[in-house]
Amino acid sequence: MNPNHHPLRVVLVAPRNPLNIGAAARAMSNFGCSELRLVNPYEVAFREARSAVKAQHVLEQAKEYATLAEAVADCGLVVGTTAKGPRALEHPLRRLELGGRWIARKLASAPVALLFGSEKFGLSNEDLSHCHWLMRIPTRDEHGSMNLGQAVAVCLYEIVRSPAAARAQPEAREAARADDLERITALLEEVLEHSGYVHQRVAGSTELKLRRLIRRMQLNAHDAEVWLGILRQIRWKLLS
Amino acid sequence: MNPNHHPLRVVLVAPRNPLNIGAAARAMSNFGCSELRLVNPYEVAFREARSAVKAQHVLEQAKEYATLAEAVADCGLVVGTTAKGPRALEHPLRRLELGGRWIARKLASAPVALLFGSEKFGLSNEDLSHCHWLMRIPTRDEHGSMNLGQAVAVCLYEIVRSPAAARAQPEAREAARADDLERITALLEEVLEHSGYVHQRVAGSTELKLRRLIRRMQLNAHDAEVWLGILRQIRWKLLS
Repeated sequence: MNPNHHPLRVVLVAPRNPLNIGAAARAMSNFGCSELRLVNPYEVAFREARSAVKAQHVLEQAKEYATLAEAVADCGLVVGTTAKGPRALEHPLRRLELGGRWIARKLASAPVALLFGSEKFGLSNEDLSHCHWLMRIPTRDEHGSMNLGQAVAVCLYEIVRSPAAARAQPEAREAARADDLERITALLEEVLEHSGYVHQRVAGSTELKLRRLIRRMQLNAHDAEVWLGILRQIRWKLLS
Repeated sequence: MNPNHHPLRVVLVAPRNPLNIGAAARAMSNFGCSELRLVNPYEVAFREARSAVKAQHVLEQAKEYATLAEAVADCGLVVGTTAKGPRALEHPLRRLELGGRWIARKLASAPVALLFGSEKFGLSNEDLSHCHWLMRIPTRDEHGSMNLGQAVAVCLYEIVRSPAAARAQPEAREAARADDLERITALLEEVLEHSGYVHQRVAGSTELKLRRLIRRMQLNAHDAEVWLGILRQIRWKLLS
């Protein structure tokens, strides 16, 4: 997270599985977010969550609250996450792509709370009534519900991702298949062995170098055919 | 995923933990991606992975391969994921924001393989030599390594996310704090009870409606103060 920004508070409401708490903490550590708040957690043993590799600092600082109102009291924006697709909702519902941008901007002026409900029931209507708006990860309608740790990771990624980093030129060519590239690699190695370029005792590391060399050519399907023809011709000549 | 596109193949190389295989499958199901390929998995018992809620169709169709070359043979682009930050690499390294766009575009013309290494060791140099380029999730330098299931979820989200959905207007006001909104909610409810608007026996559902009503006002900090003054004045009048 941008150090000039207010902190994002990740609020887990009634989480039931310590592994998920640990996974949420690990994603927070990955994306530079340290304020974990737990409302009425089912297992207080969350500090032992095994999957929280290198996320102990997040778990040690995690705070517990009896009510959601207390957990979000100091926040200028409260956003609830939901797996539900479009339907009648009493709150504005924003897709993560848009909501994440709003949250990132709001953090410049106020702390923001991002709420995740329990694994089984999600956020209750009571929980949702504390929210300014709701956010939905764009999962399939047929399987909208994400694992808690994965949902936290995806939301935090969207909030920290850099739109500027996404700009690039499209590519226009039809790509060569990987098995054609592998045939070219093998042929080239064979040709280089026969031509004395490759000594048998260093062949292993050379194979990797050649494979990378061929991948960096970014061959299209047509050029791959051309190269296969060239190399077969050279091999034939070397062996004749 | 766009049904007109070629499939994305998620390739797990030497995964060791069935729970992670299940989590990868669940994220794939969430984001509409069904082609899971496993190279030399450590535990063949992956079909039992407990966290793969509703992802059985992904796990049942998962294919096992003895070598990475076979697993990616039919792909026009092979991308390896890495937790390593900027350093001397023999491959082009792209951040997920950019790499995800490239993959999304490439899927219009060819199948793409996205590689994830084992939980402990990541992808080997041998594995990486099969890749056209490498992709990095923008995690912190101090804690770059993500949980496998979470890394799969974040990458798939970036590939399916809609840039068009991210466009929106920024907000300009300093937001009211949640505890001020809660005070306004309580005052308004009190005033409505005293004024006969709220009957005691329906007060519970009214509280939620009022709380949402107040949040939808998107009050700034100044207006919240104004509303507190107004409601206190009204309450005083009703009780006097």
